[in-house]
Order: sequence, then C-alpha cells, then structure tokens
Amino acid sequence: MKKLTLFFLALIAMCQMQAQPGGGRMMQVSSPVVNPDNTVTFNYRDANAKQVLVDVQFAGRHEMVKGENGVWSITLGPAAPDIYPYCFIVDGTSVMDPQNPDWFPNEGFKNSLLDIRGTGEPLIHAVKNVPHGSVDYVNYYSETLGLYGNAIVYTPPFYDQNPDKKYPVFYLISGTTDTEEVYFKVGRVNFILDNLIAEGAAKEMIVVLPYGNPMKYYPEGTDLRGKGDMFSKDLINDLMPFVEKNYRTINDRNYRAIGGFSRGGNQGLANGLQNLDKFSYLCSYSSFTTTAIPGVYDDAEKTNSLINLFWLGVGTDDFLYGNAKDYMDFLDAKGIKNVKEFTSDKFGHTWMNAKYFLDKSLRLLFQK
Amino acid sequence: MKKLTLFFLALIAMCQMQAQPGGGRMMQVSSPVVNPDNTVTFNYRDANAKQVLVDVQFAGRHEMVKGENGVWSITLGPAAPDIYPYCFIVDGTSVMDPQNPDWFPNEGFKNSLLDIRGTGEPLIHAVKNVPHGSVDYVNYYSETLGLYGNAIVYTPPFYDQNPDKKYPVFYLISGTTDTEEVYFKVGRVNFILDNLIAEGAAKEMIVVLPYGNPMKYYPEGTDLRGKGDMFSKDLINDLMPFVEKNYRTINDRNYRAIGGFSRGGNQGLANGLQNLDKFSYLCSYSSFTTTAIPGVYDDAEKTNSLINLFWLGVGTDDFLYGNAKDYMDFLDAKGIKNVKEFTSDKFGHTWMNAKYFLDKSLRLLFQK
Repeated sequence: MKKLTLFFLALIAMCQMQAQPGGGRMMQVSSPVVNPDNTVTFNYRDANAKQVLVDVQFAGRHEMVKGENGVWSITLGPAAPDIYPYCFIVDGTSVMDPQNPDWFPNEGFKNSLLDIRGTGEPLIHAVKNVPHGSVDYVNYYSETLGLYGNAIVYTPPFYDQNPDKKYPVFYLISGTTDTEEVYFKVGRVNFILDNLIAEGAAKEMIVVLPYGNPMKYYPEGTDLRGKGDMFSKDLINDLMPFVEKNYRTINDRNYRAIGGFSRGGNQGLANGLQNLDKFSYLCSYSSFTTTAIPGVYDDAEKTNSLINLFWLGVGTDDFLYGNAKDYMDFLDAKGIKNVKEFTSDKFGHTWMNAKYFLDKSLRLLFQK
Repeated sequence: MKKLTLFFLALIAMCQMQAQPGGGRMMQVSSPVVNPDNTVTFNYRDANAKQVLVDVQFAGRHEMVKGENGVWSITLGPAAPDIYPYCFIVDGTSVMDPQNPDWFPNEGFKNSLLDIRGTGEPLIHAVKNVPHGSVDYVNYYSETLGLYGNAIVYTPPFYDQNPDKKYPVFYLISGTTDTEEVYFKVGRVNFILDNLIAEGAAKEMIVVLPYGNPMKYYPEGTDLRGKGDMFSKDLINDLMPFVEKNYRTINDRNYRAIGGFSRGGNQGLANGLQNLDKFSYLCSYSSFTTTAIPGVYDDAEKTNSLINLFWLGVGTDDFLYGNAKDYMDFLDAKGIKNVKEFTSDKFGHTWMNAKYFLDKSLRLLFQK
C-alpha cells in the first residue's frame, strides 16, 4: 500500500497542476476560519487587488486588510452559530470564496456559505447521528411547460424499507432568484426534518421542492405572453401528479401542505388558498403576501374549517415586515385563524430566518 | 389573476432590491449567449475593471473588449456542441459568470458551465423526452470515518415501480478536487444513462458516486496519520454495505463495476484490482494509473478470468497521456486483456472527455 499512497500523492500533485480555467490562481490559504470564540477570520489571496471587502450576512460589508504574501484578512463577530451567506468584493467584483466549496445556488448572485457550528448542542440543521432520509433530484415531464422540469424530493428515513407505508407531503418553494436546490443546500430541510423526526417532534413526511421560475427554462426572447401563471399550472397539473404517481403520498387535502420563502411563500399561499380542495396546511416564511384572492377571506368560517394550519413567520427587521404585518392584521380582522412567529435576531430577509421558521412550523404539520 | 400577477411582479422587483451580500452589483446582461453558428458570446458587466479575460475549455484564455455601459464582451468559436467549463478573470481574480446559474462543483476552482446544444440530433447527455431515473443525495454512517459521509446514487427509470427487481451497480468516482456531485452536475451520468437505456444501448443499473476526498471532512490540522487509505476503507466497509442495504443491488462480482476520472480512475482501478472478489468491470477515464498492485499483473490467466471488462480511455492531448499509454503497454506486455479508447478532439484532461468515455463504456457494462 505504501507505493500506492505515493502514486496517489504524485497524482494529486499532478492534477493540481492541470490547466483548469482560472486554475493558475489556485489559492492555498484557508478561508473561512471559524475561531473557538465564534469569531470568523476571512482570508483572500490577491497580491494585485487594490481593495477587498467581505460582505457577510451577520455583519454587513467590511474592508479587509492586506497582509504578507498578498493575503487580505479580517476577523468579524462573534456570531451566533448558524449558516451565513457571504462573498468577497475584489476591486468591485463580487466573488465566492475560492477556498470554500459550499455555495448558495442562485440565479442572481454568487455567495459562499459560512457554517458556524458552535460548541454547544448541535443546531437543528446539523448532520447528526440519526437516521437520514434521501434527497432525490427528479425530472418530470410537464405538459404545461412542454419540457422536463426539475424538482427535488425528500423522502424520510426508512422510506424504502417500508414499501406499504404512505406519507403526507409538503410542497416547499424557494425565493425569487433561488433555484429548486436552495431549501436543500441552504435551507437544509432534509437535515432539519431528519433531526425533528428522530426527536419525535415532527411527523414523517415527503417534501417536494419545485423550481419557482419556470419561465427561465426558455431561451431569452421566447414569447411567453398568454401563458398565464406557468408556475401554478405546472405545480397543480404536472408536478403534483408526477409526485403522486412516483412517491407514496397520502392523496388527501388533510395530508398536504404548501409554503415557501419570500416569493416562494407568496406562490405557496396563493396556490394553497386557491386550491383548498388540495391543501390544508399553509406556511409563509418572510413572504410578500397578498389579499387579492377572491372568495377566501370573506367567508372566515368556511375558510377556517378548511385550513388545519395557517402559519406566518417574519423578522421584525425584514424589509417585507410591514407588508407581512399588514397581512396578519388583515387576516385577524377577517377572522381567519393563523399562527404568527416573529424574530428580531436573524438579520431580516435571510435564510437564517428561513431555517428557523422551517424548524418551528415543521413541528406543526400534519398534527391534526 | 391579474392582480396576483401584479403582486408577483412587485414582489420580484422588491426582492431583487434585497441586500444580498454583493447583491448591489446585480448584473442585467445575458451571458453566455450561444449563437446559431455555435459561436459563443461572453458578456461581463464591470465599468471599473481594467482587464477582463474569459478562460473557456474550447478556446483557452482571451482578453475581452470593453463596450458601452461597461460591458466586456468577446465572441469565440464556433465550438463543437458540448458542455464547457469557463470563468472570467477580472483584474486577475477568477470569477464564475454572474449571469449563469450552472456551475462546476469543485473544491479547488470556481467555473461556470457553458452548454452548447447544437441544432442537430440531441447529444447523449441532453435532457431528452425519455423516462428519467432519480438522483439521490444520501448520507451514510461510516465507521471508518466516524461520521456521516456524502454520496449520490442514481436509480434507473421505473426503479420504484419494480420493487422486486434487482440491479447491477457501478461505483463511479470523480477527479482530484471534485466533489461527489461532479459526475452528476458536469458528467451528467444520469442523463447519459437515461438516454442509453431508452435506446436499449445500456443495461439498467444503479450508479453510486462516492466522495473521493474523505480527509476533507475533518477540520484543517486534524491528525490523520495512521488512518491509512481512508477512501478505500470507507468505500469497501461502509459505503458498499450501505448501498446494498438500502438499494436493490445484485450482490455478485459479475454485477459490480468500478471506475472514475483522473484521481478517481486511479482509485477505481486500485480498489477494483485489489478486490476482484467484489468487482469484475473496471473503467479508467483519463486516469493516472499504477502498476504497483501486488499479485494482479503477474498471473494474467487468472486476472483475465476475473475481469469481464477492463476499459481505458484517454485523450492523446491529455497531460496524463504518457502515463496512461505506458500503463496500457504494460497491461499488453503482461497479457492483461483490455479495451482502449483514444480521443484527440476533446481538449485533454477535461470533462468533455469524461462524458465521452462514460457514453462509450456504459454500453459495455454488465453485458457478459
């Protein structure tokens, strides 16, 4: 085995020399470094840059200091254990941290993910020593879209070992420029649910992550006028039937939930409230909300009888807080029962809040 | 619905204003643009940059030209339809294309992915109108590593609808600084196999993508001396038992294959040749190869009787070509039967070659 090890080492050295695009700038500095006191040191090597900033969701934007060997550094925090998106801004150009393989899947910005685990009890999104479910990337044919769409499906632990068991299902939609991966890679719905299920704090369930921006499947310039609300049509007429054919879902409104973050929360509420024959659990996380759904709000008794849970969470420091609070007041004035959760310590319209709200609300799904 | 649409539009506008790290530099320019003649126009907006290069695997590194509104542009090619990694280099800093949500999962560099589809017959890695398998992200407990490891498992179309059916299994390992995602996100093993299965050109099989760098699970500075070859121990003692417990594999050496790209090919060959009681199909794609496996090469008759397929592919322009060719000559001199494939048009040590070799060799797996 010694010779083999030498060969591996030689190979690794050789491969690191390969001509990957941009590979000539391979960095050898560690970043980010989480210190024992939960401060974080960011390092970025660039001998030629004139200015390097770090922009991190627990601290905002800060100028880094150039040290020896052209490495720019800064230590920020301490911060509460959580997962924080961040980027470097190098002479005005936003870049992911070259040293960090964990990133935020997004169509509008490029951020890396900082994971501060802390030294206390593992966080609810941590990978713990509990049974784990599986996260499936699927492609389903959508008649609405005329193409195979992307979706991701979480199945709970032991799903495959219980071929006769059926499960409730939660449709969970990401934010505006997010891809369908964000509730997995950033929101960690799988690990949160694995942990809650292991604690007996949440029901076993299937979670479906749709792609919220189906218009982006088409080349720029495609005429989509007259197509209407493609997301909703695809969700109801294509994705749901696919899920129900390919996964062991309980096909009953009392066992279906829908919700999401930001624009996804709007899509979740709108589709839930317009399809109360299909959904009875509704979750809005930091969403822009809407009162413009005919026939739902005016008959509170009927609507309340159809909704098992109407859950709304928002940060008081979220730029959408005013809208969300107005909507909550509107629901209360109309007599529509709802559960409200407010935070003030998770930096506004962020996925730190999204994970927190997920943890709180998953515990309440399918408990009636 | 009109009011709802207005709300959506307002929401999208508002969310785009949210303070994402680096989000102040939200780009509104399209990139990359694949032109009808298979040339590609790259665009990058940065009014303050002094120099912007594009580095793309079909053309190398080229200086872009600054045009109106601070948008840097260049048109390169035409290129053969394929998926090409690329990045921009902005005043010396390598960055992904801010406009492109498709990227190369890697721990050593940050590249975007350019997909040139062409106008002819869809390529073998295209998302075609055929039944699709599922790609599962799983976490398995590894006694070797003392933690939950990552792996990805492809199951073929209709796997869930055939609960009594068992399948052969292919362990497929990515390159040096790749994560376990690369054979999915870049190598597109799932779509290639969906298409080959639909054509009747490949057997239905399960494909397992291990993570090739388990030492990176540990914090920097962890003392891993004395741990030996953690990848191989984890593969054989932890990942394989997990797969065989949780998926319907045929647990017989005649129904197991192993292989990989670059360092992953070395890991595949080494583990295959040292475990011929477990594997009978071996695939090496652009690998650094090794003759230092005791007892395998000297008894050709026995080794040949145990190997159903020994498949080796390399580009004649790969920086590892000399090593790979020496190894092929060595095998031939020893009388070890093997199948060789050479390319000269896919730019060397690249995933354009990796996909091509996958297509060729998947057709030969489990055909004996």
